[in-house]
Amino acid sequence: MKIAIDAMGGDNAPQSVVDGVLKARDEFKDVEFLLYGDQDQLKALVSNTERIEIIHTTEVIDMNDEPVRAIRRKKDSSLVQAAQAVKQGQADALFSCGNTGALLTAGLLIVGRVKGVSRPGLLSTLPILKAGIGDGTFNLLDSGANADSKPEHLYQYALLGKYYAENVRGLKNPRIGLLNNGTEPHKGSKLTLEAHQLIAADKSLNFVGNVESRDLLTGACDVLVADGFTGNAVLKSIEGTASATLHLLKDSIMEAGFAGKLGALMLKGVFSELKGKMDQSQYGGAVLLGAKAPVVKAHGDSDGLTVYYTLKQIKTMIDGQVVPKFTAYLEELKEDGKAISKD
Amino acid sequence: MKIAIDAMGGDNAPQSVVDGVLKARDEFKDVEFLLYGDQDQLKALVSNTERIEIIHTTEVIDMNDEPVRAIRRKKDSSLVQAAQAVKQGQADALFSCGNTGALLTAGLLIVGRVKGVSRPGLLSTLPILKAGIGDGTFNLLDSGANADSKPEHLYQYALLGKYYAENVRGLKNPRIGLLNNGTEPHKGSKLTLEAHQLIAADKSLNFVGNVESRDLLTGACDVLVADGFTGNAVLKSIEGTASATLHLLKDSIMEAGFAGKLGALMLKGVFSELKGKMDQSQYGGAVLLGAKAPVVKAHGDSDGLTVYYTLKQIKTMIDGQVVPKFTAYLEELKEDGKAISKD
Repeated sequence: MKIAIDAMGGDNAPQSVVDGVLKARDEFKDVEFLLYGDQDQLKALVSNTERIEIIHTTEVIDMNDEPVRAIRRKKDSSLVQAAQAVKQGQADALFSCGNTGALLTAGLLIVGRVKGVSRPGLLSTLPILKAGIGDGTFNLLDSGANADSKPEHLYQYALLGKYYAENVRGLKNPRIGLLNNGTEPHKGSKLTLEAHQLIAADKSLNFVGNVESRDLLTGACDVLVADGFTGNAVLKSIEGTASATLHLLKDSIMEAGFAGKLGALMLKGVFSELKGKMDQSQYGGAVLLGAKAPVVKAHGDSDGLTVYYTLKQIKTMIDGQVVPKFTAYLEELKEDGKAISKD
Repeated sequence: MKIAIDAMGGDNAPQSVVDGVLKARDEFKDVEFLLYGDQDQLKALVSNTERIEIIHTTEVIDMNDEPVRAIRRKKDSSLVQAAQAVKQGQADALFSCGNTGALLTAGLLIVGRVKGVSRPGLLSTLPILKAGIGDGTFNLLDSGANADSKPEHLYQYALLGKYYAENVRGLKNPRIGLLNNGTEPHKGSKLTLEAHQLIAADKSLNFVGNVESRDLLTGACDVLVADGFTGNAVLKSIEGTASATLHLLKDSIMEAGFAGKLGALMLKGVFSELKGKMDQSQYGGAVLLGAKAPVVKAHGDSDGLTVYYTLKQIKTMIDGQVVPKFTAYLEELKEDGKAISKD
């Protein structure tokens, strides 16, 4: 298999991207890496080119570029060229740590959507902080690809999330929840009330009903379906609260004098465990599900290790045949006269 | 001033409600308390009836009652009778720890809306975890009164939030932020893009633009405007993440053996400070803003101290004349030909 990599995207690119690629190359013997970017910079970083191909590009899309315009105009950018390789069948997946909007746009406009999926959604994997539930994570989608959604899109996310959780996270019959403002079936907005009906009607889904955001980190479901606007707000609330809580704890300890510092020293292991658990990078990047191939985004400030974990996740997606399996299920539905999209 | 109190609402009612009322009665000499509920139970708890009147009611709305039906059918419930007292001018505010939906419904259908406000919104006050910002809190509205919103409703929340922050929280020229999926003005859903224009156009507001939910606890704004569905999801995400993080910390310490327990002992002050800061009850209850009088909800599991804090908040709302000031501003707008509602 081949992974097309935007080597110039991200705060620490191309160094951290190459670091991650080298580690992945040494571990995954059946993967080839296509590195798109400035050849002088890349050649200086890659001494052993086994299963690594460097493809020279002359432009870079940065964090301030307006996504759609950047994709249309910067034709020789590392991102656009990597996406083109996937489109033309030269690579099986697309990876970037760069501008999220530009990657999503490249995914939609260049890699393209699976037929029948009207709106691909972004899936993010987050930790469950209570011990002993599933694989210790849940998968939230849409975490921000679409600001406005229809009920059928949410139903598609339920299906996409199921295939991802089964084939990448290794969960059997994953519990699908719908993000809502109450657990009772009669609660919700117009959007969630209709989406609830659609999801509940598909008996192939293990639908556990409405889920409130306060119950996510204690394991209310394995896949959380949400519209992209609310999903994005929930993702960022969780990140912000965890980070602010840990900072406050640190500040309070610094002010607590000698006893505080001694106490903190004794709890060093506990704090680093907590911090590790909250660190999402180990669970991989955000995936644009519903595209014709895996399109995966790691955080802009990713280091080599995060890049490596994300490449591992991409390999699992390809090995697990998430896209073909999902596409086959859509075909089955169509044959049964149950198309999931009006588009 | 008089406060009408649903003495039977909440997990620990009427005991905790009466505990809070007694403490508030002893401290606030200009407040009279109308206690609605079972007179036998209430009389047994109130030995000194100075500025406390007990009004006997025969029904109770519980947590499982469907709100609209309960308000229509249980005419002699403690909540409905307390709301009627506000409607008829016998009391200046309504308080309950009971069924949130029922209280909101009583606020809308019995107490009524201020003319010109199409959808009253629920305001919740949350902590800012970074030191030295404003009064250490921010105000989120709508935190869940309405599942579907229009741009003009969000603009109304900006105005309502401003008056509340100024007159109850004592903030001068509070910074108003709009919850969005990016900080750039061109980001957002159809709803937030339009709401952004409306809020930005009112020069009486100190609008700081779009705010992402990850920046709330570090003080991005004093008033966060959101639609009720997303606002509810953000509120519950913050609560859930803070709670799960503290639980995980506690569990890890328990497992860390002797050094862990000793460390925890040394950090006891730090942990209790953290827990105290995350405890929202000290900031008062959730307020239905846009109703003709303060309608305030405290958590179902409130103890006497929380009830006391919430009664203090209600007194501040009445003293600060939040509702009359807001109503006067709406009249001014109307005279200038700028009605804020199409209803």
